[in-house]
Amino acid sequence: MRLSRFFLPTLKEVPAEAKIASHQLMLRAGMIRQSSAGIYSWLPLGFRVLKKIEQIVREEQDATGFQEMLMPTIQPADLWRESGRYDDYGKEMLRITDRHNRDMLYGPTNEELITDIFRRSVHSYKDLPTLLYHIQWKFRDEVRPRFGIMRGREFLMKDSYSFDLDFESARRSYNKMFVAYLRTFARMGLKAIPMRADTGPIGGDLSHEFIVLADTGESEVFCDAALLEIDVLAETVDYEDDLEPLIERWTGPYAAVDDKHDPADFEARVPEDRRIKGRGIEVGQVFYFGSKYSKSMGASVAGANGEEVDVEMGSYGIGVSRLVGAIVEASHDDGGIIWPASVAPFDIGLLNLKAGDAACDKAAQDLYESLRIAGLDVLLDDTSERAGAKFATMDLIGLPKQVVIGPRGLKAGVVEIKDRATGKRFELSPEAALSYLTA
Amino acid sequence: MRLSRFFLPTLKEVPAEAKIASHQLMLRAGMIRQSSAGIYSWLPLGFRVLKKIEQIVREEQDATGFQEMLMPTIQPADLWRESGRYDDYGKEMLRITDRHNRDMLYGPTNEELITDIFRRSVHSYKDLPTLLYHIQWKFRDEVRPRFGIMRGREFLMKDSYSFDLDFESARRSYNKMFVAYLRTFARMGLKAIPMRADTGPIGGDLSHEFIVLADTGESEVFCDAALLEIDVLAETVDYEDDLEPLIERWTGPYAAVDDKHDPADFEARVPEDRRIKGRGIEVGQVFYFGSKYSKSMGASVAGANGEEVDVEMGSYGIGVSRLVGAIVEASHDDGGIIWPASVAPFDIGLLNLKAGDAACDKAAQDLYESLRIAGLDVLLDDTSERAGAKFATMDLIGLPKQVVIGPRGLKAGVVEIKDRATGKRFELSPEAALSYLTA
Repeated sequence: MRLSRFFLPTLKEVPAEAKIASHQLMLRAGMIRQSSAGIYSWLPLGFRVLKKIEQIVREEQDATGFQEMLMPTIQPADLWRESGRYDDYGKEMLRITDRHNRDMLYGPTNEELITDIFRRSVHSYKDLPTLLYHIQWKFRDEVRPRFGIMRGREFLMKDSYSFDLDFESARRSYNKMFVAYLRTFARMGLKAIPMRADTGPIGGDLSHEFIVLADTGESEVFCDAALLEIDVLAETVDYEDDLEPLIERWTGPYAAVDDKHDPADFEARVPEDRRIKGRGIEVGQVFYFGSKYSKSMGASVAGANGEEVDVEMGSYGIGVSRLVGAIVEASHDDGGIIWPASVAPFDIGLLNLKAGDAACDKAAQDLYESLRIAGLDVLLDDTSERAGAKFATMDLIGLPKQVVIGPRGLKAGVVEIKDRATGKRFELSPEAALSYLTA
Repeated sequence: MRLSRFFLPTLKEVPAEAKIASHQLMLRAGMIRQSSAGIYSWLPLGFRVLKKIEQIVREEQDATGFQEMLMPTIQPADLWRESGRYDDYGKEMLRITDRHNRDMLYGPTNEELITDIFRRSVHSYKDLPTLLYHIQWKFRDEVRPRFGIMRGREFLMKDSYSFDLDFESARRSYNKMFVAYLRTFARMGLKAIPMRADTGPIGGDLSHEFIVLADTGESEVFCDAALLEIDVLAETVDYEDDLEPLIERWTGPYAAVDDKHDPADFEARVPEDRRIKGRGIEVGQVFYFGSKYSKSMGASVAGANGEEVDVEMGSYGIGVSRLVGAIVEASHDDGGIIWPASVAPFDIGLLNLKAGDAACDKAAQDLYESLRIAGLDVLLDDTSERAGAKFATMDLIGLPKQVVIGPRGLKAGVVEIKDRATGKRFELSPEAALSYLTA
């Protein structure tokens, strides 16, 4: 992509309404624009990141055997009256009346709708477990939306649902999502720590929040440094295996958000040099809630002996759009965003410092084409901006690698490569640069 | 994917509410389920088709240089008051009041929102053209939703928007979308004929509808058979070239929907043996409307001489979810759906006629793994249903190729291959079948 054609309306000033780094940087980098309080458009740069994150989430869901589907955003109120949550949910639910005066709502979550689909489709224990997920926009009418897309009103969520015959099987479904979440966040360069959590309006007995450590996180968290040393991507996972040993490695050491924190227990269980006190952002939550919805909504199946059994359910959410902000919170510096390679909007920023100069244009064009042929996504700055502005924009938008082509370097037969995360720079011939970048 | 684990709740009976083939078949094939009037969930089989269609639409948009972004579903009413459409739009607009009593709406289209983004971001003619698109759910509160996802209330639309400095440039943007649409529909196996159209609530001077010929279409259409003979995929397109000659090949011959049909002109211009009278489904529409929105909303740029110029706009829609239905209407028989290979939910249906029989299980498993390794999506029917039911399900869900493995064939060293579209069957050794299917 050529920057001269790319829709990238960066901002020079930090918008006054933006209080945290991710909100400021995403606005400045031309990733998002607000249209109403807590409602954002994703401009092409932001959209690219959102899609990469969504795809990682999808791949890790698919690996577990959960199957993707898609439920609508607008739901009938009657389903929520069946579960009893229509009145419980309060003003965060966006309530809508259609032209025929039917009560509808913009889904904040989908337990009722998926349970309705299940009960109309599955009638025998032989068809269990039923494991489904979707990635769809949700709406929560927050009284005070803030922090950009971190606490917006319209947001993209991946929500999975499991239907099992008994607790043991439900626990296996829960474990699958637990492990998939660890892998999902790790692939985005995030250290996400599972912490026991309240079940809140979803209900149920068992829940974990997944908390990303970030200095600007909303809540204080406490955990054992041992948790930071587990590399969940180091081994492949067979989701048909017993996952309990892996779960235990993650749930054994101390980890708590502030409202669940027990200082005495923390000090007793964690040696001083391993005590981490930091801040965290919730990026996912998993729930097991048994028959809470299946009982109230009549989702039962015929068991092996013909008896009707209320199915055991769980639900599992990842804040897909929120993750974009969480990654920026966890990975930025004074110059701007530092994207992990797996979610970067482009792999490489190629700067032509003197657009219009025949040698620079040719060198830039040649390298651009070679990198593209090698399968890399390249953003070529072919504009006539001055060098300082080009460097600042590239640092701001945070592509992992920068390649700088200028007239002086070319005369010496070199281009400069800069690693955005470390700031390290070095010179290579254009041919060696191509080998290095495509290695 | 193993059918024993795949969430595919097919129906034996034709649901009484479904009046047309696509609605009946999509319900029976377990592709969709209705949750409210005109609002559907996409079950895994339907979701796979929807995603394949979306991806073809995306690839052809990207090829033109239009850039993908994403706008939210919920929009502020104030933007629509600026354009004057808030009161015009009538009861099809789903109007919403949020917790702070602000007027919002669920977007039925996005001219206002994209114009707002444009006017806040682009200020110079040098940044034109600005060419953007998104693929997002829309809502139109139809008084009588019908025909399943063909005329639903919540539907997935791809909408593109162009901002240009003058008419000539705007016309080039219009032509890009025109050609991209021809290619998009052709890739899905559809013959879509562009026809001059009224501009309706979008407004403007110039518009074409793209109409798919299908016996069960909503409207009567008349066209010259010459249009069916143009193969738009036969040549590659350079979107930077002048596209007018290509456009003229498509707009020269007679083509009209019934309310624009002129029988005398039809007979004068089209020889009798080339007169096609058929039925059609609208799957896309393109609009050029000049400064209709830019003037009312103040979207101007500084021109080359410093003067303020209202930008020239166009918008371009494809009904992504509707296309699923349109393809089924255009491609089915008494047995069920016949998917074109490009949008099929799986490439191959592999039937093990005797699950539990060691030889059948092994042959099915071996072929399944080999086909998967070759990059094909295979649905393996490993259930214990009887053969007749297996054949009926595979025909219903319409995968392009079926491979039948049974004990008698295996003894003779063969499996049977069936082409869903032609019904042709032939026997091959398992090795030859693998070569044939991966060729």
